[in-house]
Amino acid sequence: MALKGVLRPGYIQIRVTDLDVALKHYVDRIGLHEVSREADGRVYLRAWDEFDRHSIVLRQAEMPGMDYAGFKVASEADLDTFSRRIKEYGIEVEEIAAGEQPGLGRRLSFIVPTGHRIELFSEMALSDHGPMTRNPEIWREEPHGMRVTRFDHCNLHGPNIDQVVEFFTQVLDFSLTEAAETPDGIAAAFLSCSNKAHDVAFIRRAEPDKFHHVAFSLDSWHEVGQAADIIARYDIPLDIGPTRHGITRGQTTTSLIRSAPSSGRGGRAGGKRGRPTATPIRLLV
Amino acid sequence: MALKGVLRPGYIQIRVTDLDVALKHYVDRIGLHEVSREADGRVYLRAWDEFDRHSIVLRQAEMPGMDYAGFKVASEADLDTFSRRIKEYGIEVEEIAAGEQPGLGRRLSFIVPTGHRIELFSEMALSDHGPMTRNPEIWREEPHGMRVTRFDHCNLHGPNIDQVVEFFTQVLDFSLTEAAETPDGIAAAFLSCSNKAHDVAFIRRAEPDKFHHVAFSLDSWHEVGQAADIIARYDIPLDIGPTRHGITRGQTTTSLIRSAPSSGRGGRAGGKRGRPTATPIRLLV
Amino acid sequence: MALKGVLRPGYIQIRVTDLDVALKHYVDRIGLHEVSREADGRVYLRAWDEFDRHSIVLRQAEMPGMDYAGFKVASEADLDTFSRRIKEYGIEVEEIAAGEQPGLGRRLSFIVPTGHRIELFSEMALSDHGPMTRNPEIWREEPHGMRVTRFDHCNLHGPNIDQVVEFFTQVLDFSLTEAAETPDGIAAAFLSCSNKAHDVAFIRRAEPDKFHHVAFSLDSWHEVGQAADIIARYDIPLDIGPTRHGITRGQTTTSLIRSAPSSGRGGRAGGKRGRPTATPIRLLV
Amino acid sequence: MALKGVLRPGYIQIRVTDLDVALKHYVDRIGLHEVSREADGRVYLRAWDEFDRHSIVLRQAEMPGMDYAGFKVASEADLDTFSRRIKEYGIEVEEIAAGEQPGLGRRLSFIVPTGHRIELFSEMALSDHGPMTRNPEIWREEPHGMRVTRFDHCNLHGPNIDQVVEFFTQVLDFSLTEAAETPDGIAAAFLSCSNKAHDVAFIRRAEPDKFHHVAFSLDSWHEVGQAADIIARYDIPLDIGPTRHGITRGQTTTSLIRSAPSSGRGGRAGGKRGRPTATPIRLLV
Repeated sequence: MALKGVLRPGYIQIRVTDLDVALKHYVDRIGLHEVSREADGRVYLRAWDEFDRHSIVLRQAEMPGMDYAGFKVASEADLDTFSRRIKEYGIEVEEIAAGEQPGLGRRLSFIVPTGHRIELFSEMALSDHGPMTRNPEIWREEPHGMRVTRFDHCNLHGPNIDQVVEFFTQVLDFSLTEAAETPDGIAAAFLSCSNKAHDVAFIRRAEPDKFHHVAFSLDSWHEVGQAADIIARYDIPLDIGPTRHGITRGQTTTSLIRSAPSSGRGGRAGGKRGRPTATPIRLLV
Repeated sequence: MALKGVLRPGYIQIRVTDLDVALKHYVDRIGLHEVSREADGRVYLRAWDEFDRHSIVLRQAEMPGMDYAGFKVASEADLDTFSRRIKEYGIEVEEIAAGEQPGLGRRLSFIVPTGHRIELFSEMALSDHGPMTRNPEIWREEPHGMRVTRFDHCNLHGPNIDQVVEFFTQVLDFSLTEAAETPDGIAAAFLSCSNKAHDVAFIRRAEPDKFHHVAFSLDSWHEVGQAADIIARYDIPLDIGPTRHGITRGQTTTSLIRSAPSSGRGGRAGGKRGRPTATPIRLLV
Repeated sequence: MALKGVLRPGYIQIRVTDLDVALKHYVDRIGLHEVSREADGRVYLRAWDEFDRHSIVLRQAEMPGMDYAGFKVASEADLDTFSRRIKEYGIEVEEIAAGEQPGLGRRLSFIVPTGHRIELFSEMALSDHGPMTRNPEIWREEPHGMRVTRFDHCNLHGPNIDQVVEFFTQVLDFSLTEAAETPDGIAAAFLSCSNKAHDVAFIRRAEPDKFHHVAFSLDSWHEVGQAADIIARYDIPLDIGPTRHGITRGQTTTSLIRSAPSSGRGGRAGGKRGRPTATPIRLLV
Repeated sequence: MALKGVLRPGYIQIRVTDLDVALKHYVDRIGLHEVSREADGRVYLRAWDEFDRHSIVLRQAEMPGMDYAGFKVASEADLDTFSRRIKEYGIEVEEIAAGEQPGLGRRLSFIVPTGHRIELFSEMALSDHGPMTRNPEIWREEPHGMRVTRFDHCNLHGPNIDQVVEFFTQVLDFSLTEAAETPDGIAAAFLSCSNKAHDVAFIRRAEPDKFHHVAFSLDSWHEVGQAADIIARYDIPLDIGPTRHGITRGQTTTSLIRSAPSSGRGGRAGGKRGRPTATPIRLLV
């Protein structure tokens, strides 16, 4: 198939309430590399097997949650096409100039029916430490921590799931790969722009713009076991696993980073103690 | 990305000189399932994780080799588009009516510059034993033997590699993902129609229409090790591995099925003993 | 170290209430091989990587549970020494003549303070299908099902844990490798006659002679995952896992075979539904 | 079995010609931890899963090779017994006082028929970072590099293999687990003091006191693959693998550390270039 349209998840900007705690978790435990800290305080991270300059952006804030998630499209022309199609669909498109994030080109930013800010971009600087394509070594820098390979997807909670599915499938050309349907419409939608099981998931919830988890890819069930060892060793709260999903057969374990141990109402959907203060991180094969 | 154009490898018809020996190998060792034996003697096989009715077709013949390999396209309309583009490129297209293989729709058949017969199709009956999409079990029938999950790609040898690359990239919209270049042009071309490292490979060789190997996917390095155990246990000639490819980082082991122990000139390119009599089978993660 | 005294677990005789259901589970799912069915109805099984003729003996009975577990000692002379020591400790020893089980030599049989019948033997016929020691193949018969390699240990529940620990350590020369201690004495004792984490475990419980589980060895965490797939696929009740034990670091998953779906009071200690009707089977690396 | 006599390999002192290069290899690549550097220049290392203070001792020297290998016995009384038995066998025993190596008790030192210095000890200080036995974490310090768990065995080359086998089996109570026999006697002997496939190996060679490799344990085939990735990534010369041994079924890969890139005649037996300058390191499951 020709590589056109939306290709894959590119970046996600996450609010954390304690940047040092979060970096300890994302860098030392999850195994991301710190790319840069910019003057505005944002920290840019990438997984060892990603081509792009960065994928995860952490921003210190009062309230945890997701600022936005960006998807890469194949070309600047595709960007123009999507800008037109999104507006035709009736959603306002904000265009953000290149450079608002280091290395990132111009992007489209818009709010989907669940209340989440989604972005599209086509240009991102390549990392100097990414996969090699000429006389390649297996990696440049030895993987560490949970050895996650890539930012895989995010799981978002909010209202209007039927509408968000319509938007992603009709306007952004995603496929609805899995769904939990109820008499009231779709309760859970798993949407893919590739041949992955999903590139983004939406779960029904009354409050808009809630962030459930960011997921990273791992290489094998063995790595899931090693990640679980790290979760146990450092007393990282465990949400689930190691197990295999019934749907998608993905082998996984999910941990919870407490990014705001003492905060009040927070960004996490589905928090079990009424005071969501953490962002679960899913690891999967 | 919208799923359009050529999607993936679909089937391959392989000539074997002893069908019983070949079936022992493909079914008991490789772990394929026998789908049907038809009146014309052809035997249809599939791997446990494939949706389609079959992927591997074995045909008893004097001389081992590949009859043809077929790629699935997204729609009948795509088939028409490709028919026109292939003819415009100057290659003759034969249209084969639905049903020449059980379950397979109409297909385009044509000879590419290396001398190999390549086909396109858009309709194939689904297997009754394929992956489940509603309340899915992990598998319907327990994997056995080397537990290969899917037909992954084929590796073909012949002349005119530059031309075959031009054809696959310009007419069929493949990407050239890897290449070994020489002053005389491309010596080895790895072409992808997806986000896999390659969906077909061509290696330069004077003789046209030579077949080097068919490759199957495995789930993990652990499975590669178990496949190597089976190769060792049953004295299946070993070509390479277990190892990891420098390019693509694919973890692999390659065996050799002696489909024609006593035959003379044969279908295998690169046979080390001057009398190629076997089809290597590559297993990879 | 010189191999003297008690070497390892050898066999276990288990009562099942439906032999056909049990065989389906032990042979098709767990992956044991059926060695023989004898005139008295007992069925003898072995795991693929065991030297001995058999390790698991199933006996149809009204009530599930364990008849006895036998440990191999290094020599007939050791058997005589242990006979004397056990009697000196004050426990009666019954000597069972060779041949009561096919291939098994004479054995000592005695009841330990928890009420369980334990046996010692030094001679067992070797399997014709066991590991090879001359020009060895990796296995003779391809592993199937959960691919368990060996009978590892049994977990037994009953009273008088302190006394059973004294007996195993002072008389049989086992080591107490782990223990859960309470003001009332030892609540859980893990005893080893080798360099394994444990070769038998005793857990405190008022009723004597209760059988909690038989455990089998697996080769790796990958195999634990595949066993869990089989547990899920065939709806085998799951007790725990996949996980890693905090103590011993053993990677494991535990299933439950319902050997007596309709029975009343049964052999399983710790059944969650008040009507223990099943024997959990632990799989571990 | 009661734990008596020789229990397991304990330490090995290795001569290296460039200590900095060797430490880079043993610590950063193999994954050992540096325990101490002493005034006499020796560096003490241990693997993350070992109880003892250290297992590998590196000593800078003109010529690479092994100074000695020490085996742990169960008690001081056993040490006395072995001292007597070794002398009765006709081999001189040197007694080295406690403290010659930090943390190590008194030891017996003697030269076996192949010309190698072998030692026995019963007391070694425990590491503060070893496996935990009370409320244990899986590890104290996260494994790194090749994540080797333990010093497993050494492989030594020299003459008089029949005599060394006689000595190890009759005097030290080892078992001969594997042997390659020739009309001239045993060419390769694999000897075990435990239930491992071997705790030391001797291979016939005219020159006495040659050192072939030190081997470390890994947890799984997956770890063998990751070790091979590290070997490839850092251009560590590869001797063999990843593969599985025909004998013992051990899954392994073997690398070569060039400890003396420019040296002349060296300590390695079997060097392929006539100028052995490196110590192969075997990794195995």
